[in-house]
Amino acid sequence: MSLAASSHDQRFGLSRVAVLPGPLALDGSATLSPLEIAYETYGTLDADAGNAILVCHALTGDHHVASAHPRTGKPGWWQRMVGPGKPIDTDRFFVVCANVLGSCMGSSGPASIDPRTARAWGMTFPVITIRDMVRAQGLLLDYLGIGRLAAVVGGSMGGMQALSWAATYPERVASAVVIASTARHTAQNIAFHEVGRQAVMADPNWHGGDYYGGEAPARGLAVARMAAHITYLSEAGLTEKFGRRLQAREAKTFGFDADFQVESYLRHQGLSFTDRFDANSYLYITRAMDYYDLAEEHGGRLANAFNAATRFCLVSFDTDWLYPTAESRAIVQALNAAGAPVSFVELSSPYGHDAFLLESPELDRIVAGFLRA
Amino acid sequence: MSLAASSHDQRFGLSRVAVLPGPLALDGSATLSPLEIAYETYGTLDADAGNAILVCHALTGDHHVASAHPRTGKPGWWQRMVGPGKPIDTDRFFVVCANVLGSCMGSSGPASIDPRTARAWGMTFPVITIRDMVRAQGLLLDYLGIGRLAAVVGGSMGGMQALSWAATYPERVASAVVIASTARHTAQNIAFHEVGRQAVMADPNWHGGDYYGGEAPARGLAVARMAAHITYLSEAGLTEKFGRRLQAREAKTFGFDADFQVESYLRHQGLSFTDRFDANSYLYITRAMDYYDLAEEHGGRLANAFNAATRFCLVSFDTDWLYPTAESRAIVQALNAAGAPVSFVELSSPYGHDAFLLESPELDRIVAGFLRA
Repeated sequence: MSLAASSHDQRFGLSRVAVLPGPLALDGSATLSPLEIAYETYGTLDADAGNAILVCHALTGDHHVASAHPRTGKPGWWQRMVGPGKPIDTDRFFVVCANVLGSCMGSSGPASIDPRTARAWGMTFPVITIRDMVRAQGLLLDYLGIGRLAAVVGGSMGGMQALSWAATYPERVASAVVIASTARHTAQNIAFHEVGRQAVMADPNWHGGDYYGGEAPARGLAVARMAAHITYLSEAGLTEKFGRRLQAREAKTFGFDADFQVESYLRHQGLSFTDRFDANSYLYITRAMDYYDLAEEHGGRLANAFNAATRFCLVSFDTDWLYPTAESRAIVQALNAAGAPVSFVELSSPYGHDAFLLESPELDRIVAGFLRA
Repeated sequence: MSLAASSHDQRFGLSRVAVLPGPLALDGSATLSPLEIAYETYGTLDADAGNAILVCHALTGDHHVASAHPRTGKPGWWQRMVGPGKPIDTDRFFVVCANVLGSCMGSSGPASIDPRTARAWGMTFPVITIRDMVRAQGLLLDYLGIGRLAAVVGGSMGGMQALSWAATYPERVASAVVIASTARHTAQNIAFHEVGRQAVMADPNWHGGDYYGGEAPARGLAVARMAAHITYLSEAGLTEKFGRRLQAREAKTFGFDADFQVESYLRHQGLSFTDRFDANSYLYITRAMDYYDLAEEHGGRLANAFNAATRFCLVSFDTDWLYPTAESRAIVQALNAAGAPVSFVELSSPYGHDAFLLESPELDRIVAGFLRA
C-alpha cells in the first residue's frame, strides 16, 4: 500500500491513488489483486472517523468533484454542491470521491496495465458491476480507516452506487442521498447504451479493444457520446437552448455541415469527450449500468435490498426521461416496505436528467437539510 | 417518358418506374432533369380521374405499400390499410404510392446514375426537402393524368408530405390524412438524426459517399438505424416486449455479446436494414426531414400554410415520443385558424411512434370513416 500524491497542483482537495492489495472478488467471478483506486478528499476526518461522506460519480465522471479536472482544467463537476459552507459542507464533513473501478482517470480499468502481462488490459479486463464498484470503494474506505459513512451521495450512476452501498453494506451507511437515479436499467436504457457500444466497436480503430499505443476509436466514441447526450437533456430543454436556430449563417446551406446549432453542439460534445475518456472504459461502465438491477440481486423483490439501518433522501426531476420519477417512486415504495426512513421530492426543471449537475437552489436546500438532520 | 413494368412478379399492385423529363426546380436551387420516380398503383382510375389516393411513405419506406417487398419478400408495409375492402379501399379508390425522391428503391437519389457523369451521384446529388418530394409526386400525378387527389394519406414522414401537399397544392388535395406526424422537426428530432448521420459518416467505408461498387458503410448505417429505432418505440413497449430478459441463456455472460434480448433485437434491426437501404439515401432523407418546418415556409405562421380547400384528419398516439400529440395539436390549432375542416383523435397504444404501422382497429375505423365521408 502506498499513498502517493498525484503530480498536478491542487488548491483545494487532495488527489491520490491508493494501491489496494485486494483481493477483490467480482460478481463475474474474476478476482482483482492488486487494484488501484484514484480518489480525492476534501475537509478533515474527525478523530472517530464519523464525519465521512462518500460522493459517487456518474458514468463519465471522476473523483475531481470539487477541484479542477487535470486534463480539461474545467471546475469540478459538483463544485456548487461540495465545499466550505456548501450543501455538502467540507468545513464539517470529510468528503471522499473515488474514480469508479473500470474508469480511466486513475482507477484500475481496461486502460490500466495488467500486471501479469505488463500490457494494457483492454477487453481482458474483467466485466464489472455497480456492486463491484461499491466493493472497491469499501476497500478504499478500509484503507482510509473509515468504518461507517455519515452519508453516501450520488446522482445518476452515482445514485445507483449509493443504493448499492445501502444494500451491500447497510451497517456502514448512516444515510444515502440518491438523485435522478433508478434501481435498475430498463430495456430503453440498455438499448441506448447498446447503440453506443456498437458505435465504438464499429470503429475500425477499436481493434477488439487493443488500440492502446495506436489511434483510439475516437469517431465511434464520439457517436456514442452524442447518442447518450440526447438522453441527458429534455426535449423542452433542447428546444429552449437551440430550437431550430441555424449556425451563424443567414440560411440553410443545403449540405451536410452542421447547419443547426443543435448539430454543432452535439458534434462538439462528442469530439471533446474523446479527449478525456477511454473508449473501453465506456464499454465497461455502460455494461455495469445495464447489468444493474437491485431487485434481481435480492430475490426479485426490491424491498429485500433494504433495511431500516439507513436513512434515505431521494430526488427526481420532472423532465428526466432517462430515469423518470416513476423509477424513484418504485424505490420509495420498496424503502417504505422495508421500513427505512425516506424523504422524496420531485423537482421541476426544464433540463432533464442533467438537472442534477446544474444550478438548482431547491436541490441544494434538500441535500443540505438532509445532511444536517 | 416511358411506362416500363418492373421485372418482379406482382400478384396485386402494378410496380413501374416513371421517367419524368422535369425540369424539377428544387428548394436548394438545383434542378433535376430528367428524374425517375418508382411507384406502384392499386385499383382502377375512374374515367374522370376523381378517385385517386396518394399514399406517402415514411423515412425508410417504399412504394410497395400493399405488395411484397421485392428484396426482402416481406408483405407491404401497410397491407392491413390498403386493399380491397380495407380502410383505403382499392375496390373504390385508385391508390398510388411513390418512392420518395432521394430514396433508393427506384426513384432518383444519391445511388442513381448522374446522366452527366454516368456515375452514381453520391454526395453530388442535390440536397432535397419534403416539399421537393411533393413536387416530384406532383409531376408523377401529371404524368398519370391525375389532377386532384381524393386524398393524400401518410404517417410519420408520410404525414409531413401530406401536410406539404395541402400547403403546396391546396387545389389538388380534397382531403388529407396525417398520422403520427408533425409540422416541423424539433431540436431533439434533429439531434437523433444527426447522430445517425455522424455514425454513417464515421464509417471509413463511407468514403465521402463514393462507395458504390465497393463496400458500403454498413456498420455505420446499422448504428444509425439502431439509434433511430429506439425513437420509434415507447419505453413501455420496449419493457413489455423485452424488459430485462436475457437471450436464451441461464445467466449473464459478463461479456459484450448481446446478453439482453433488446440488444439482440436492436442489432438485428440495424444489420437487416443495411441489406435494403442505401446509406447516402439515409443521409439525404433525414436531412430533408430536419429541414422541414412548414411554418417557416409560410412566414413563420403555421396557419398561413393552410386554407379551407382541404379537409383534414389527424391522428396521434399517446406513447409516441418522436412526434408527440402536442405536435398534432399545434397543427389542429393552425387548421382551425385557417378555417380548414379538421377531425383529430389521439389514440392509445403501447407501441409508440411505430403504432401507425401496426394492427390498430381504431385507426382503421377512423381512416375508413374519413375517406367514406
